[in-house]
Amino acid sequence: MPKRNNISMSVIRRLPRYHRFLRHLRNKGVTRISSTELSAKLGLTASQIRQDLNCFGGFGQQGYGYLVDQLSDEIAKILGLRNEYKAILIGAGNLGQAIASHMNFTEDGFSLVGIFDNSPFKIGNRINGIEVLEMEQLEPFCEREKPVMAVLCVPREAVEELSDRLCALGIHSFWNFTHCDIVVKHPDAIVENVHLNDSLMTLCYQIQAQDEKEEEPGS
Amino acid sequence: MPKRNNISMSVIRRLPRYHRFLRHLRNKGVTRISSTELSAKLGLTASQIRQDLNCFGGFGQQGYGYLVDQLSDEIAKILGLRNEYKAILIGAGNLGQAIASHMNFTEDGFSLVGIFDNSPFKIGNRINGIEVLEMEQLEPFCEREKPVMAVLCVPREAVEELSDRLCALGIHSFWNFTHCDIVVKHPDAIVENVHLNDSLMTLCYQIQAQDEKEEEPGS
Repeated sequence: MPKRNNISMSVIRRLPRYHRFLRHLRNKGVTRISSTELSAKLGLTASQIRQDLNCFGGFGQQGYGYLVDQLSDEIAKILGLRNEYKAILIGAGNLGQAIASHMNFTEDGFSLVGIFDNSPFKIGNRINGIEVLEMEQLEPFCEREKPVMAVLCVPREAVEELSDRLCALGIHSFWNFTHCDIVVKHPDAIVENVHLNDSLMTLCYQIQAQDEKEEEPGS
Repeated sequence: MPKRNNISMSVIRRLPRYHRFLRHLRNKGVTRISSTELSAKLGLTASQIRQDLNCFGGFGQQGYGYLVDQLSDEIAKILGLRNEYKAILIGAGNLGQAIASHMNFTEDGFSLVGIFDNSPFKIGNRINGIEVLEMEQLEPFCEREKPVMAVLCVPREAVEELSDRLCALGIHSFWNFTHCDIVVKHPDAIVENVHLNDSLMTLCYQIQAQDEKEEEPGS
């Protein structure tokens, strides 16, 4: 496998899509898929897929296609999905609860080991079998369990202090649902942002742009 | 304002971030901000921001900076946030419920007017004041209310039939939380995907890549 740091994030971002689709095929009992079929189903060109996979040494054979099991396993390995990195979730509001109960962390490389909140109405509740702990428990918990990633579902105002506190506890990776740009203050942190509002606004822009196009004379 | 279709999606995707930050400043009572300060807070260069805004005619004055109110209003206009496009949400499971109760649709250009599910345990419940309707109500509801966007929080298997049904009802824009690539079948649809699993797997990859880097001899 070539050095990972040569691989662009746009290639990396396509891998989970391949992996999901191959898992889906596997569950349906499909054992082999041609590159043409794979590309059609994914809405990419066969050459794009080949190029992406070549970054990691290449799989599949000309005229034979891909073995679903093998390719799926290889991509899981590249993505590191077997690591079961320990993760904690902070902020058990609507969104935090949904994330904790809706997501299958184990399939995606993580193991959710703790949930924290500062509301007495939430502390002690169980979400997906995990008890919500009070924020005062954060330090002893992290020293004991050594999680490496934190899912942030807290209000924007809370993030600055919280990210300092988490970094001091050895957590440098964040799945960030807040509107705070963590890397501005912690440039070395690994941050994957999910900005739901931004996504919704971008959709709004696209609808308006389409409307305007349709209103143009001659369109 | 120049033709929208000349503007790249990467510029568009930065606009919500500008807008959020300006709204935040406005709420704090800040009236003016220098381009240097704006760029530092956003983790971008001043020239990047100037270039982005120039796509829409340019704002601000050399040596004077930006007027927060004015720039915020202009970006809201570019994004079309005042349109209050009617939206419906389908699938009131954990995630759907969280989206419906957690998101402020109105701030982001939409008005959530209906929620649908096929589970008798959910039909009739109220989320954020909106009653969950049964799927059979979809056609009469859409004919009456004419929503233009659907938030999809349903299982993957349900999407193909559902997207056909929605397109037939005149809904061509989707905020898609499912794992189905809608554009493969509906290439003209406007789709904004939120693939939470992909985001989590990408984070996993980055943590593993970092771990390997640290294990390298001489690092």
